[in-house]
Amino acid sequence: MVGYPTKRKPMGITSETSTARRGMSLEEELNKTNSYYLELDLANVHKKPTPIMIVTVSYPSRNKAKITEAYFKTPSTTDYNGVYRQKAIDFEAKETQSKTAFALTYLHEHQIAHLRSVQRHGALIFLIIRFSTLDETYFVPGQKLLNFIETTDRRSVPIAWFRQECLKIPWKLTPPIDYLKCVDAYYFKGEPLND
Amino acid sequence: MVGYPTKRKPMGITSETSTARRGMSLEEELNKTNSYYLELDLANVHKKPTPIMIVTVSYPSRNKAKITEAYFKTPSTTDYNGVYRQKAIDFEAKETQSKTAFALTYLHEHQIAHLRSVQRHGALIFLIIRFSTLDETYFVPGQKLLNFIETTDRRSVPIAWFRQECLKIPWKLTPPIDYLKCVDAYYFKGEPLND
Repeated sequence: MVGYPTKRKPMGITSETSTARRGMSLEEELNKTNSYYLELDLANVHKKPTPIMIVTVSYPSRNKAKITEAYFKTPSTTDYNGVYRQKAIDFEAKETQSKTAFALTYLHEHQIAHLRSVQRHGALIFLIIRFSTLDETYFVPGQKLLNFIETTDRRSVPIAWFRQECLKIPWKLTPPIDYLKCVDAYYFKGEPLND
Repeated sequence: MVGYPTKRKPMGITSETSTARRGMSLEEELNKTNSYYLELDLANVHKKPTPIMIVTVSYPSRNKAKITEAYFKTPSTTDYNGVYRQKAIDFEAKETQSKTAFALTYLHEHQIAHLRSVQRHGALIFLIIRFSTLDETYFVPGQKLLNFIETTDRRSVPIAWFRQECLKIPWKLTPPIDYLKCVDAYYFKGEPLND
């Protein structure tokens, strides 16, 4: 056992990968994940562009349009949607710094209405919620969160609820947030992919 | 028959409605149609916001972010998607002034790749193509157009092909472009809605 380090780090997340991760937002990681799914032809999921109200456009050169005045608009839908295993999928992703709870004010009323609506029409709905400070990311089945909202007066969802009711998404290098594994487990009951 | 006008206009499209229509773009009519579908809870379909690369944002007041430099980006997907009758739907809408053919240059290569991809994963794909000068709007089943593109060297699709192979969408007041009727007829073989 010559040279074997005594305080060996546990397998899996080493300090190296967790440094590499630092500074990467949930959005960046989801974009990487969706690109990975697209390249491997596992699913087709995209983040919708941020809706912007354009006021003024100038044309400094003949082929180039330059927007010189514009404002952010409130999105009327969730940020992500796509197609996977013959089903529409639709989800929202949120990050919180809190160590104890996820404040429901992060979700706009129209986003909740949107999730209900697309579910009625046949989409699989969920949320990806990250507690950044705790470094915990959860796959939250949409109906579970809707039930929680409908049966409580609370303004936030305690971390314990996520730990008990949701699936924790382990961080990987490629893809960073393998949420389709959770869709498989939750919505397809782990049935093999080639259905 | 006292007072009955001799030159009675045919029922349906009167000059009044066609005047009302003039100046309304395909995009505006589709937005109205999608709002109508949403209000009646028939489907949930949205136009994706135009993707924009934001360069500079200023904050003239504490709560207001003003974008002062931004540029249009090329979209990597189609413009419209949603959920209908338990299926994902995905489509592109285009207008042409030509009276004879639809130029395939209107469709970007990545949009065609996107349609192929979402179809593989289970979306119903189609295009809505309007010959504005002729006042003819067609529902174009995606696979039919893909077959056309794959088996020809032509750079455009003649109007005769649309008249023969596609479904003409009649203009109505509400909703202006009732394309879900075509989805029903083509993809659900006219099965009743309550399936």
